[in-house]
Amino acid sequence: MSLLVVGSVAYDGIETPFGKTDRILGGSATYISLAASYFANQINLVGVVGKDFADDDIELLKSKGVDLEGLQVDKSGNTFFWKGKYHYDLNNRDTLDTQLNVFEHFDPIIPDVYKDSKYVALGNIEPSLQGKVLDQVSKPDFVVMDTMNFWIEGTPDALKETLKHVDLLVINDSEARELAGEPNLIKAADKVREMGPGSLIIKKGEHGALLFAGDEIFSAPAYPVIDIFDPTGAGDTFMGGLLGWLSYTDDLTPNNMRKAVIFGSVMASFCVEKFGPERLKDLTEKEIYDRYREFRSLSEIPEIE
Amino acid sequence: MSLLVVGSVAYDGIETPFGKTDRILGGSATYISLAASYFANQINLVGVVGKDFADDDIELLKSKGVDLEGLQVDKSGNTFFWKGKYHYDLNNRDTLDTQLNVFEHFDPIIPDVYKDSKYVALGNIEPSLQGKVLDQVSKPDFVVMDTMNFWIEGTPDALKETLKHVDLLVINDSEARELAGEPNLIKAADKVREMGPGSLIIKKGEHGALLFAGDEIFSAPAYPVIDIFDPTGAGDTFMGGLLGWLSYTDDLTPNNMRKAVIFGSVMASFCVEKFGPERLKDLTEKEIYDRYREFRSLSEIPEIE
Repeated sequence: MSLLVVGSVAYDGIETPFGKTDRILGGSATYISLAASYFANQINLVGVVGKDFADDDIELLKSKGVDLEGLQVDKSGNTFFWKGKYHYDLNNRDTLDTQLNVFEHFDPIIPDVYKDSKYVALGNIEPSLQGKVLDQVSKPDFVVMDTMNFWIEGTPDALKETLKHVDLLVINDSEARELAGEPNLIKAADKVREMGPGSLIIKKGEHGALLFAGDEIFSAPAYPVIDIFDPTGAGDTFMGGLLGWLSYTDDLTPNNMRKAVIFGSVMASFCVEKFGPERLKDLTEKEIYDRYREFRSLSEIPEIE
Repeated sequence: MSLLVVGSVAYDGIETPFGKTDRILGGSATYISLAASYFANQINLVGVVGKDFADDDIELLKSKGVDLEGLQVDKSGNTFFWKGKYHYDLNNRDTLDTQLNVFEHFDPIIPDVYKDSKYVALGNIEPSLQGKVLDQVSKPDFVVMDTMNFWIEGTPDALKETLKHVDLLVINDSEARELAGEPNLIKAADKVREMGPGSLIIKKGEHGALLFAGDEIFSAPAYPVIDIFDPTGAGDTFMGGLLGWLSYTDDLTPNNMRKAVIFGSVMASFCVEKFGPERLKDLTEKEIYDRYREFRSLSEIPEIE
């Protein structure tokens, strides 16, 4: 089934303890689309870039089968630019520079041919814009949304309004606690689901992820990555792998949602191995399925006779 | 096979956001023994208590089949007493009072009949005392040790000496990072294992546990406890469930170690439901095995065709 992806398309400057790049393709819509492209049949991207956006990056997205009719090219300025530096433990980063550029006035206009997309990925942008996307699509089967502390604190009303129309929210553990006002993650999950999303994924970084779907809780392990090179985009890549699998299989049972969480984790575990989205450019099916099986054996609990 | 348990036997004063108790049975050897008693055939306890130690508590341990020939009763003073208060999120606690009492001069003397114990649990006490225990036992099959930041910082040389003779070290994530001087947990695990312990378990509280055994890593989920009443003793209880299962099955394959980690997690998940060791007094076999199966379904990753 078709997957609509809405979010940022950007350039990032990244410094980690292991290296430095001044300018590399980034943005939530980019990572989501690239990761989803290994599964999804049809990806429709909506975003905005500026006059500096490189032909090579257009070609990269196209080569992965990403439809770019919804990618606005605003010649009045440059593409959204973010620069950050990761600390030694890679869990914390400092933002060194943010230039919103043409992204500042991003108005997500959904082309007519995208309006019947059955799966929708709302990358982490302003909640009112996420809501505006949903106003334009006709009856999607499944809407997945990301958000962050910035919106939880800054625009709580708009966020809660948009949440009413979301099927699956994907956030990290500190965001879940903050959104619910509850330190116990399991209780926080209940509170967040009462706000609208029938299902919820709580990402816990090096500790894996929790899926709450139906009456089930699924605890997914983290892949034991020894050499995390660059964590940029890992969360968006998780969402892309997840939605790629769901839109490809068009199966929303809790059992298939578990598979989707693992495929999201698989793609994120590859993403962090190189700078930016480099590792997402040329993965093989075998690499992906082999790693899925590694996740299985990593967390397999033997049966007791 | 027989299990030797060495550690503290204490009274605790505990305050949590949900209640308060002035004096309840505690100590690492107590929790380990009680948890192990649901599996192990023979538990030999070595510890020290004072003149105030209650007959009821002696009876409790005896009723669980714990052999107390190694429990020294030192009439010169009172039993080790600890008092602490947990904060709202239950992840942090303040120590309000510590009275070492007769524990200050604890000299772990292993009775002759205990010396051929095949499994040894070294609760969290001074590393040189843990080493002294190992000097007295004849060729145990499997030695499991707990320690803490206090010894990692305070007596690193003694700790490293004792570690050389340990088969499985059980510590939490911050302790593993500190002991190895390495923020990446997977790398830290390698470094710790190079210090002696062939196997390692890293406890991550609400995020579960990691087992490193042979070439395998096993990621165990945490039980989604909605109402943690009192976390006191959860780590020792984990070790007790783990060692109870291992000594009962006498099977040290990585596959059985996985089961042991889950039985440890099962017992710890019960422990936190009530004050102190209350919940460990009257569990049924059905409760324990049902929860084991809950752990399995919690983390089961479906196969991909």
